[in-house]
Amino acid sequence: MPADPQAVIEAIGAALPADAVVTDPASMDAYRWDRALDPDAGVPLVVVRPLTTGQVQDVVRIAAQHGVAIVPRGAGSGLSGGSSAVQGAIVLSLDRMREIRIDPATRMAVVQPGAFNAEVKQAAAAEGLWYPPDPSSFEFCSIGGNIATNAGGLCCVKYGVTTDYVLGLTVVLADGRAVTLGGPRLKDVAGLSLAKLFVGSEGTLGIITEAVLKLIPAQRLPATVVATFPTLQGATDAVLAISRSLRPSMLEFMDRPTINAVEDETRMGLDREAAAMLIIQSDEPAEAAREEVAEVERICAEHGASECYATDDPDESEAFVVARRIAIPAVEKKGTLLLEDVGVPLPRLGDLVAGIERISAAREVPIAVVAHAGDGNTHPLLVVDPNDAAQKERADIAYGEVMDLAIELGGTITGEHGVGRLKQPWLSSYLGADEYDLNLRIKAALDPQNILNPGAVFGASTEAAR
Amino acid sequence: MPADPQAVIEAIGAALPADAVVTDPASMDAYRWDRALDPDAGVPLVVVRPLTTGQVQDVVRIAAQHGVAIVPRGAGSGLSGGSSAVQGAIVLSLDRMREIRIDPATRMAVVQPGAFNAEVKQAAAAEGLWYPPDPSSFEFCSIGGNIATNAGGLCCVKYGVTTDYVLGLTVVLADGRAVTLGGPRLKDVAGLSLAKLFVGSEGTLGIITEAVLKLIPAQRLPATVVATFPTLQGATDAVLAISRSLRPSMLEFMDRPTINAVEDETRMGLDREAAAMLIIQSDEPAEAAREEVAEVERICAEHGASECYATDDPDESEAFVVARRIAIPAVEKKGTLLLEDVGVPLPRLGDLVAGIERISAAREVPIAVVAHAGDGNTHPLLVVDPNDAAQKERADIAYGEVMDLAIELGGTITGEHGVGRLKQPWLSSYLGADEYDLNLRIKAALDPQNILNPGAVFGASTEAAR
Repeated sequence: MPADPQAVIEAIGAALPADAVVTDPASMDAYRWDRALDPDAGVPLVVVRPLTTGQVQDVVRIAAQHGVAIVPRGAGSGLSGGSSAVQGAIVLSLDRMREIRIDPATRMAVVQPGAFNAEVKQAAAAEGLWYPPDPSSFEFCSIGGNIATNAGGLCCVKYGVTTDYVLGLTVVLADGRAVTLGGPRLKDVAGLSLAKLFVGSEGTLGIITEAVLKLIPAQRLPATVVATFPTLQGATDAVLAISRSLRPSMLEFMDRPTINAVEDETRMGLDREAAAMLIIQSDEPAEAAREEVAEVERICAEHGASECYATDDPDESEAFVVARRIAIPAVEKKGTLLLEDVGVPLPRLGDLVAGIERISAAREVPIAVVAHAGDGNTHPLLVVDPNDAAQKERADIAYGEVMDLAIELGGTITGEHGVGRLKQPWLSSYLGADEYDLNLRIKAALDPQNILNPGAVFGASTEAAR
Repeated sequence: MPADPQAVIEAIGAALPADAVVTDPASMDAYRWDRALDPDAGVPLVVVRPLTTGQVQDVVRIAAQHGVAIVPRGAGSGLSGGSSAVQGAIVLSLDRMREIRIDPATRMAVVQPGAFNAEVKQAAAAEGLWYPPDPSSFEFCSIGGNIATNAGGLCCVKYGVTTDYVLGLTVVLADGRAVTLGGPRLKDVAGLSLAKLFVGSEGTLGIITEAVLKLIPAQRLPATVVATFPTLQGATDAVLAISRSLRPSMLEFMDRPTINAVEDETRMGLDREAAAMLIIQSDEPAEAAREEVAEVERICAEHGASECYATDDPDESEAFVVARRIAIPAVEKKGTLLLEDVGVPLPRLGDLVAGIERISAAREVPIAVVAHAGDGNTHPLLVVDPNDAAQKERADIAYGEVMDLAIELGGTITGEHGVGRLKQPWLSSYLGADEYDLNLRIKAALDPQNILNPGAVFGASTEAAR
């Protein structure tokens, strides 16, 4: 709590229009959690909903003056608790800053952080252009949150992640100054690459109020292959073989529990007995796509696929992609989820999936695995019976064991969701002491008071060792 | 000069093998300059040529202890004086650290900084893979220098710049600690994006001793279009029209002085009367490439091209690309060069080129313009008669005026060469006070003694305003 909470509220009230300030507890409740539903989320002092960079600066200046924490948030779709409210803090919601301008001549989008990913895609598509990054939540996640977590998605295996499309950012710093970093230029090496530093910083270094994004020409309609496998090993070996020789625009994986959860929702006729299913797309031009699809089918057959189905019908293709995208909500209906986001170098994918199966059996916690297999990024979903406290305890252990396994295999504790508050306790041991200390030095240099999203990414102390 | 230069040399001699330490002035001379030939380059205290990360750490620890500056360098091909020797400093040359390992399964290269760009390309090609970034100097520039300057090149218009291919870095920090940032994972958001921060930092934040690079499948053989235009405006309008509707894998520009300098070297029959020439490539699959080439030809004709020639013969294609790549050395034979690297948002390319023509006329300094036109990045080459001191003075003024013009047009003072020492005086006014201060905060946090490449990028003082 700040020394004088009432003074903070009054200062904000004086600086911002009335409709930008929320103080009644019931209305504030909508801004306390993201999708991680952190049970430790605090009650904010006030929620602000600015419309301009200038208003964001006003709020940050007040916060800095009073030493009160700020938790920035976009659409609240985060999965690592990065925007859980901090007790007594200002929650700064960017949900009303949603402008999008597309410049077809330079193939760039200038966007405010609250715009949804899907809205940016739509605006780009209206000009024959494409903003590739596509988290499964693209219809309800904000572009600001995407940038804050360097979000990934399904097409990243061919088209890269969010940072690959960020050319410039306007950022409000911890002292309220606004800086413009990079801009609408494909090449710019004047000064440090600071725009890239803010991508993935989860609101701990500054508050993004505008972004310049690179767009590319519209994607060709992809052809889709769906292959089912009687063994996990067959499926992960096929992933490796496909990745070695081809460059699919999507290469997704679902294991048996995931397939069944999705089939329960969609009744689309997925093979409930399969150990795993792959969804592969090619967006090469017609002839090249046909060749790529044929080669994918050959590789899947070679690795023992029980069924392999190819289509270039757009609606049918989209149905399979939707099946993949709803995997997390579908599994969520089976219990309370602990959602993982571990990634490994591709050759270790099979070891990761097999190891997760062992952890699931040993801890007696069902784990459904869905994966952006082509880039080695998996989402093991630990399913906990909400009425079984003992299982919850075992699941908490398994959650850590999955991360330990990923690290052991040369992987990461989070590929695209961010560290947030949920994975914060694992970060320093994952990174190592010197790397973590380097992170802290940057944090301390940019936010010496530790008022920006405290507790996310970094622990209570953000003092670097000297 | 350090307090006790002899103690520094002795400590280095004790820590490193004899063949890694160069102290005789004649041998050190080869390590004093890069291609910018900075007349103010100092005489180093010692040149070290380590073979391992551990040896780099030893040198940095000694430097930190004695407060002596370190100038890291790769192949010495820099064009902004970023590796000019500092008087009394340690020059740390990475030219012996040249290992390259390719992992075809994950499509990644693990490289040491002294390896040449061309060597990385060759090693990748042996596995059917491609490392895209292609500065014109690719045959004699090091990958470490490429990363330090976030180098660009010709294919960036479609394939992006160096940072887009950097997944991980090993960096020796200013206190001698070595950190590993990122790694062989396509997605990894655990902690700040520090690998990206070091890309383009020009040796001012740390010394890169290893990099993990993303590779993609080998490029298809491109088809090439060469078009000449009777007016600059016709050529730059054609660039804009091509960029708006197509996605060429190369879109290069040469003006009349450049064409003539190249023709003097090659006698390949270029049109000496043309105001400008474009070299455009398409690397789409066969049918799509044919369509793209036809569309390029149509657009060039529509914008008044006097001649338009298309070929898919690989040797003939390569001859035109070589003509483009030798443009800078060809113009260099006409006098002493002041080499610019300004970039603008693409719609301002015509204004930039026209403005440069005006500056050239007003200052009576020939300026040849060669450009990576498709990404708005130009290299105006100011040609100075080495015996004309008055012209040199006018050229120095014109050099600044070209940067001022680029800034006025929303552009950058350096697109791909780096700030180095030559453009350092312009950086703070280009960035603006708050942005520059933010750069300084990072610099001060990571190199509080300012021993890493002092004078490059930043001026004498690296104290941030508080």
